[in-house]
Amino acid sequence: MLIVKKFGGSSVANAERVFNVANRIIEDYKKGNDVIVVVSAQGDTTDDLIEKAAEINPNGASKREMDMLLSAGEQISIALLAMAIEKLGCPVKSLLGWQAGFETDSHHSIARIKKVNTERLKKEIDKKNIVIVAGFQGLNKYDDITTLGRGGSDTSAVAIAASMKADLCQIYTDVDGVYTADPRKVSTAIKMDEISYDEMLELAAMGAQVLNNRSVEMAKKYNVELEVLSSLEVKPGTIVKEKVKMEKTLIKGVAKDNNVARISIVGLQDTPGVAFKIFNKLAQYKVNVDIILQSVGRDTTKDITFTVPKDQGKQALEAIESIKDILEYKELSIDEDISKISIVGAGMESNPGVASKMFEALYDAGINIQMISTSEIKISVLIDAKYADRAVTAVHDAFLA
Amino acid sequence: MLIVKKFGGSSVANAERVFNVANRIIEDYKKGNDVIVVVSAQGDTTDDLIEKAAEINPNGASKREMDMLLSAGEQISIALLAMAIEKLGCPVKSLLGWQAGFETDSHHSIARIKKVNTERLKKEIDKKNIVIVAGFQGLNKYDDITTLGRGGSDTSAVAIAASMKADLCQIYTDVDGVYTADPRKVSTAIKMDEISYDEMLELAAMGAQVLNNRSVEMAKKYNVELEVLSSLEVKPGTIVKEKVKMEKTLIKGVAKDNNVARISIVGLQDTPGVAFKIFNKLAQYKVNVDIILQSVGRDTTKDITFTVPKDQGKQALEAIESIKDILEYKELSIDEDISKISIVGAGMESNPGVASKMFEALYDAGINIQMISTSEIKISVLIDAKYADRAVTAVHDAFLA
Repeated sequence: MLIVKKFGGSSVANAERVFNVANRIIEDYKKGNDVIVVVSAQGDTTDDLIEKAAEINPNGASKREMDMLLSAGEQISIALLAMAIEKLGCPVKSLLGWQAGFETDSHHSIARIKKVNTERLKKEIDKKNIVIVAGFQGLNKYDDITTLGRGGSDTSAVAIAASMKADLCQIYTDVDGVYTADPRKVSTAIKMDEISYDEMLELAAMGAQVLNNRSVEMAKKYNVELEVLSSLEVKPGTIVKEKVKMEKTLIKGVAKDNNVARISIVGLQDTPGVAFKIFNKLAQYKVNVDIILQSVGRDTTKDITFTVPKDQGKQALEAIESIKDILEYKELSIDEDISKISIVGAGMESNPGVASKMFEALYDAGINIQMISTSEIKISVLIDAKYADRAVTAVHDAFLA
Repeated sequence: MLIVKKFGGSSVANAERVFNVANRIIEDYKKGNDVIVVVSAQGDTTDDLIEKAAEINPNGASKREMDMLLSAGEQISIALLAMAIEKLGCPVKSLLGWQAGFETDSHHSIARIKKVNTERLKKEIDKKNIVIVAGFQGLNKYDDITTLGRGGSDTSAVAIAASMKADLCQIYTDVDGVYTADPRKVSTAIKMDEISYDEMLELAAMGAQVLNNRSVEMAKKYNVELEVLSSLEVKPGTIVKEKVKMEKTLIKGVAKDNNVARISIVGLQDTPGVAFKIFNKLAQYKVNVDIILQSVGRDTTKDITFTVPKDQGKQALEAIESIKDILEYKELSIDEDISKISIVGAGMESNPGVASKMFEALYDAGINIQMISTSEIKISVLIDAKYADRAVTAVHDAFLA
């Protein structure tokens, strides 16, 4: 059996943890498995390197040179992990992204993997070596080092699993699986044995930062079975795959996202093209819009309300103000004290009772709903931020407790 | 004009120094020169990385993984230097050893350069980019990272200069050139304008650690003109080349080496093969022998005395003791309180007056000579360590003041 394992930076932050990871790897290797491991840079290495760059050219360094700099971080961690495995007596080779065959496009700092040339990986596996691969990095067609951006190491692991046709891709994290709600907040939260790719994607998009979205998308595309499990405790995690066995409950999780701001434009002229102008301008300002709500036109004006990530709120206001003359709105306001509560589960659209059950739970808890958004497998509501935790518990208990 | 410049780790130890180096580079670039720069890892980076490895597997890590680890050091420094040059407004590209075309053999940690494939370097120079190359590192035929060992960055610089047919290879150091003696010790020491490769090699072998020997050998082989100059002050240094203009004085320098121990084996049976047995055993123990002196046989015994680097003294004794039964010597002793004083200059062998002048100077200073060794361009004497500085001054003043 070929297993791909991915460990994040905190899992290899110091010598003790490096040995902990090495032992987890060797355990599976000694059972006769082939093992390829993807690692991120150690603990604070990336931050330290970013600081060094900031001393030279704050915010001005080219992305090519940033990639050259930051990719040194994984180079250090793969060598140290390989040394620990050597010390424990198993054959091992560390490989940089390019050595492991990672071809990417040329978008430095956010490169996309085009292909993994598996020749070298196969050669090392054939020699019965444990292979340690630097996550987060690749090489473009000009032979320049690229990095994959946030969560890149997860994507590296899934890409290897896909191209090597691995039997399992294990993503080790600081939680022991995927829960129906944040277990630190909701005491009745349950760890799921299995979840589908789509449900996982919705949970990730809602701020449950267990797995990087790109990696789940890639796993779905190439049908790579993922397991999310703890790097500290030895116990089964949550399997993410295409089809999961039917369970009693439809709803897979409740999540809260506080990183949201609501922008309201009141008293817009009700003429065609207004919405286009607004959202086109927001796109130019690189603002990510989430939920959009447009009031039905009264007299000759209408209102448009939408949500954006909190840190893009200022940009969104600037974008709208830059076309104030064209839009002729009466009022522009922002509310940052809001929270988005979502429930996720496949087949929700064919169960109209789900939405009403959620709304009822919130009503019973005395929480006012400000906006609603639904998709095939998700229902989200916007509420006052101060009720967020109470809302999660109320909704969770209604569906899952 | 194509100039290759090499800066050591202390020259780029912090942001301020990185900018100092960047300015030196840009100065020459703006005069219309093509510039390729070789840099070592920043200040203590290499030591920090070695310490990290020692926490995992003290002395036991494979050389392959050590090379993987240590080569990250130059990766960081080239990116930072490139960022500083970007900040100062000049076009620049950093390249790792393998990107710059360094092919080496597979002796990890002490790899030899086989070839520099200059394709990429030429492409970047054609685009008028300043090119920053990671020194000390290359790639073997298995696509594994190798490092070149001590002084490797000097060698990297000379190899690039040779294969790119550079007009000049400038090695920036913390001294401003090559002196006739250590200027910190001998106040009358003079900086030389020029020195030949052979003279430089002898000075380096004698402990004048201005230039790494392998780099000078390579410069001699490919006739690369070197300049040794200060990274801190802007002024001409010392040119190292094949033929130097005749100067009044024959002697190019006086050097002192305290890292020497003398081993004496007294009362050896005067039979054939004794010397072979001794030095063969020393080679097995990896002891580097420098000066060898064998007494003329008296009765049926003889004495053999030789010098070794001080830190190999113990090993040397162990080597000899391991064949005590075969050698049947009477006495084995070591003297570590000695110093080697050498004078270097081309054409010395055809000037018998040079040796006697040196011995006279030492005699006048009241210093006893314990051993003598000569080569075509060097005369070395072994003396009591406590007279070393006095000896250097005496000899220097006799020839050079």
